[in-house]
Amino acid sequence: MIETPYLLFLGDAPDMLAAKVAIGIRDWRPEYALGQIRLPGCGADLGLTDMTLAEAREAGAKTLVIGVANRGGVISDKWKEVLLEALAMGYDIASGLHNLLKHEEDLVAKANEHGRTLHDVRVPSVRYPIADGKKRSGKRCLAVGTDCSVGKMYTAMAMERDMQERGMKATFRATGQTGILITGDGVPLDAVIADFMAGSIEYLTPDNDDDHWDLIEGQGSLFHVSYSGVTLALIHGGQPDALILCHEPTRTHMRGLPDYSLPSLQTLRDTALPLAQIANPACRVVGVSVNTQHMSEDDAKAYLAKVEEEMGLPATDPYRFGSAKLVDALEAL
Amino acid sequence: MIETPYLLFLGDAPDMLAAKVAIGIRDWRPEYALGQIRLPGCGADLGLTDMTLAEAREAGAKTLVIGVANRGGVISDKWKEVLLEALAMGYDIASGLHNLLKHEEDLVAKANEHGRTLHDVRVPSVRYPIADGKKRSGKRCLAVGTDCSVGKMYTAMAMERDMQERGMKATFRATGQTGILITGDGVPLDAVIADFMAGSIEYLTPDNDDDHWDLIEGQGSLFHVSYSGVTLALIHGGQPDALILCHEPTRTHMRGLPDYSLPSLQTLRDTALPLAQIANPACRVVGVSVNTQHMSEDDAKAYLAKVEEEMGLPATDPYRFGSAKLVDALEAL
Repeated sequence: MIETPYLLFLGDAPDMLAAKVAIGIRDWRPEYALGQIRLPGCGADLGLTDMTLAEAREAGAKTLVIGVANRGGVISDKWKEVLLEALAMGYDIASGLHNLLKHEEDLVAKANEHGRTLHDVRVPSVRYPIADGKKRSGKRCLAVGTDCSVGKMYTAMAMERDMQERGMKATFRATGQTGILITGDGVPLDAVIADFMAGSIEYLTPDNDDDHWDLIEGQGSLFHVSYSGVTLALIHGGQPDALILCHEPTRTHMRGLPDYSLPSLQTLRDTALPLAQIANPACRVVGVSVNTQHMSEDDAKAYLAKVEEEMGLPATDPYRFGSAKLVDALEAL
Repeated sequence: MIETPYLLFLGDAPDMLAAKVAIGIRDWRPEYALGQIRLPGCGADLGLTDMTLAEAREAGAKTLVIGVANRGGVISDKWKEVLLEALAMGYDIASGLHNLLKHEEDLVAKANEHGRTLHDVRVPSVRYPIADGKKRSGKRCLAVGTDCSVGKMYTAMAMERDMQERGMKATFRATGQTGILITGDGVPLDAVIADFMAGSIEYLTPDNDDDHWDLIEGQGSLFHVSYSGVTLALIHGGQPDALILCHEPTRTHMRGLPDYSLPSLQTLRDTALPLAQIANPACRVVGVSVNTQHMSEDDAKAYLAKVEEEMGLPATDPYRFGSAKLVDALEAL
């Protein structure tokens, strides 16, 4: 668990695109985002209060979160100055960078000196069990996609917010670096050893109240040959009661695989549901989440209406039109 | 690559069951099995010549292979004496034990002193790529099971032998510890990091002659919730042209999962084939391999006849009746 609230480190990010993690925290956990700290030349601005390390510490910040991608895979000397000072002032540091904090000797030494923790969320910090497949109490919802990066995390985050606003018991369960940094906890599934993948998801979504929903962050796609094994482990470890199908209609081929075309929503349903029913025979497909960012509003609405008719399921773009239809479907289950 | 031939270390194995790895080497790579070395009280006997370290070295042995499971997860002092002496005499050591040779300081020191290699085949020694899904030349066959441990490795090994005897180009590709120790090479798939599983299988089965067959060792089962993700990575990384369905008819539930029943062969076919066709649309199910060890010969023959009729596919128990039918099916493809 990463201690909250956070001060968000934007470094010398060239633009907002590089600040994806920080944006996610601001949007989905604004109560964790006490302020931002930027280096000269930073081209990103979250619209949060600019704070010094001392000011944010005074205001209660516990962890400095590296909210940006670094350039060239190196933690620069300019960054180091801020990180070392933060550790000396009592901050923990959390990072999803490929190069790990724990491989930087000066950071490790300073953290030890001040009794602070370096969180590298890209690598597991837990010894996960092998999955036992036992039925757990509580309910679970998983988003599965026709491809990678079609909006599975966003869908689960939006549903969590809507459900909590309705007074339902709901918890987003992060399975990727960005989700873990946003929520402060989770499983970095793509870095887990093969034999323990499904077990890590059982660990992440334990027994709970009968009316509690885990909204599990999806990963990869059953149709993406590079990562499909990760997706199936998520389906079998998660034992979902409800599946949401996610799709991005303008994509011409699978992400990074020019020779592979996307499956239809029907094919995704007919593939994912029987596999999910191995672990949970009661599992149902309850709705469709479409990422319409590259379509006009009229085209998006027409597309969603067509999907609803063809699939016989509620369909929405949770970013553009809200996730209420999907939450209604969970409530009706 | 582990250097051959081997001297097989049986230690103080209580019985033949504990010597599974050594038995596999003797049965499938007899040309690698120069002899056996046993400690006092050893209850296993492979029927090979008992040799001292010096005798086997003299006869050309390059690697001492630990062919047994150890008791209590400790490499005992009695074992250590032999292993240290072997390193001093110029042997490499290969092991599939859970506790790694490279974690034993005295073995590491001795290996360094004499320039020898410690092979821990349970952990990857290669940085595998992420799968790119590109079509490769040559042909590939993969055994998929209704459950774990139903004879997938044995089936592939038997087919490799038959194919080579017929003059076909065929290579068994190991994906588990036993297979790697038997053949001297392979990918320990269950220990690979999630994101690199499919890529490790692409690496294991590269471009080859058009008439060459890789016989890929299967792992887990799409229906075994603890390991299904590993199986799907194998299917998508392997891009098989041919699937063999493997089954053990007397099993009452999935291995280690008392609440899960086995799927039918029909269900396995209808699940595995569409998933395989994502990576290779030309993939076909070509035969059935049944492990009939718990059935009488009459019952086994009747069962195989029934499977052939119901599935419209050749069916055999390769251990009991040979794998010729399955090889015929590959030749006919």
